[in-house]
Amino acid sequence: MSNPKKASSAEFVKQIISKNISFLSSAITLIESNNSEHKQKATEILNDCLPYANKSIRIGITGVPGVGKSSFIDVFGKYLTSIGKRVAVLAVDPSSSINKGSILGDKTRMHLLAQDSNAYIRPSPSGDSLGGVARKTKETIVLCEAAGFDIILIETVGVGQSEIAVHNMVDFFLLLKLANSGDELQGIKRGIMEMADAIVINKADGPNINAAELAKSQFSKALHLYPLKESKWTPVVNTCSSLENKGIKEVYAFVNEFITFTKKNGYFYKHRKDQNNQWLLDTIDYAIKKQFYERDSVQEAIEAFKEKIEKEIISPFEAAQQILDLN
Amino acid sequence: MSNPKKASSAEFVKQIISKNISFLSSAITLIESNNSEHKQKATEILNDCLPYANKSIRIGITGVPGVGKSSFIDVFGKYLTSIGKRVAVLAVDPSSSINKGSILGDKTRMHLLAQDSNAYIRPSPSGDSLGGVARKTKETIVLCEAAGFDIILIETVGVGQSEIAVHNMVDFFLLLKLANSGDELQGIKRGIMEMADAIVINKADGPNINAAELAKSQFSKALHLYPLKESKWTPVVNTCSSLENKGIKEVYAFVNEFITFTKKNGYFYKHRKDQNNQWLLDTIDYAIKKQFYERDSVQEAIEAFKEKIEKEIISPFEAAQQILDLN
Repeated sequence: MSNPKKASSAEFVKQIISKNISFLSSAITLIESNNSEHKQKATEILNDCLPYANKSIRIGITGVPGVGKSSFIDVFGKYLTSIGKRVAVLAVDPSSSINKGSILGDKTRMHLLAQDSNAYIRPSPSGDSLGGVARKTKETIVLCEAAGFDIILIETVGVGQSEIAVHNMVDFFLLLKLANSGDELQGIKRGIMEMADAIVINKADGPNINAAELAKSQFSKALHLYPLKESKWTPVVNTCSSLENKGIKEVYAFVNEFITFTKKNGYFYKHRKDQNNQWLLDTIDYAIKKQFYERDSVQEAIEAFKEKIEKEIISPFEAAQQILDLN
Repeated sequence: MSNPKKASSAEFVKQIISKNISFLSSAITLIESNNSEHKQKATEILNDCLPYANKSIRIGITGVPGVGKSSFIDVFGKYLTSIGKRVAVLAVDPSSSINKGSILGDKTRMHLLAQDSNAYIRPSPSGDSLGGVARKTKETIVLCEAAGFDIILIETVGVGQSEIAVHNMVDFFLLLKLANSGDELQGIKRGIMEMADAIVINKADGPNINAAELAKSQFSKALHLYPLKESKWTPVVNTCSSLENKGIKEVYAFVNEFITFTKKNGYFYKHRKDQNNQWLLDTIDYAIKKQFYERDSVQEAIEAFKEKIEKEIISPFEAAQQILDLN
């Protein structure tokens, strides 16, 4: 087997579409690299993988810390491979690089999938901005699709803007909840509730079953208060237990129903089109910023002006204008 | 009195620093405008107001919907004017323009302040992105400071990234909470807890008093689990009642303690410096994007490529590269 370190872009693409995981991983590493040669190569690979992409179902999974996302993904992913699907698990967690905290998608937290040759787990890329992390993840989706993965699960932390970023790159958005977590009807995560295509109350096992059923009925009622979504899909609510492997295949049934429903009414295609347009704009934004900031004169000017700003010789606003005039 | 509609930038500045509220409001309207002449004028006014700015204390106030932010700000602001302060109330709520929902800072929700000549209430600017709304609010702070407001209160919704945006433009960040809201120790809003310099449990009145005291002690304990903040300030926890006007002046005492403490250890200045550097970069980012997208050739190319992307003739990634090559 050839060595990814020495391979050409064409060799990479050939190996990736032959489902060579070692090459897939190396290509993702190139995407995540800040080295400009790596970036150039990543771009070539990505471009040539694009004709093979776009064929998977992309599912976003969110929920507050402690809701059991990893165990759920482990069991859910295992179910998917058991019915013949190849599953990639990605994560968007900008905090993991900043706080050096636990990295989502950590293989040690997904015992079953980690040992499954039809599953591929990749931790959240690091990055100093959510935008950067999200861009790398979108590009990783393309590579995973070219490598023949049928289903891409994208995990995110249940905090802040990363959920919106993930929602913007998936077909189906799943919100995991706990019974008695207290935020049921408070509207705390209202923005998230509105994004969900399904809400599943996890840990519906043992003494929690009744509470989970109650939560299910509360969420169902709460969802009726929301206006109809653009997809015209009414979000479904159910319970599950990752521990007892209950309610897991039902989640996949919901996904399939959703896909059939939205392909029929056209939303599926419109949604992907909107996401592609957004990807276009995000890629441009990223590149024009990069182009501007990578100039030596700009870097020097920024450093010089930061000092002047600190000494109150100039305001940030004026400094920005002068730096822009370097153009 | 001269008419803002016909006034020169110099006249604007003169009137603003003379505390002419009608000119202040008109200048903020220019900041919020998308008309390029207005923008040009706004920039001139802003530049000339900068030497008079930077002298207020900026306080961010957040909390989930229903926590009573408006009533709190009404009573808190009234207390501040009663001790001789001039208070401006701004808001950052990107959703208000998207959902056309209730606009924070709505004068009808702040009865006391709305009638107080030492207070100025300005609703959240509209905008299609949080970045845009935040930029306009930062510029509005400058104008309000030039107009001699001693304290700027910046309200935000308790959802999503807008809290981070507000945290990035204030000296002191106040989190309002309710007792029994269920999210006390769940870490749901952990990111927000970590930003707070004070947590105040609102609606500590009538039958809620005991629960509020309990929540206070729970939050105090919970905060001990967090690492020491960069400011070295230990966030304070207290209860208050906007209804009964209790615990309100204590909040201002916390703010003053914090300012004294962080001025002494230097954090106050470092924090403002960091914010200024961020403002510099945000202003540049905004301008380079604007410069790029406003070119006719770019607009036309984007529209043409969107169609090709939809027809799967080209990928978003390749299209972006071709548009960038127009440069």
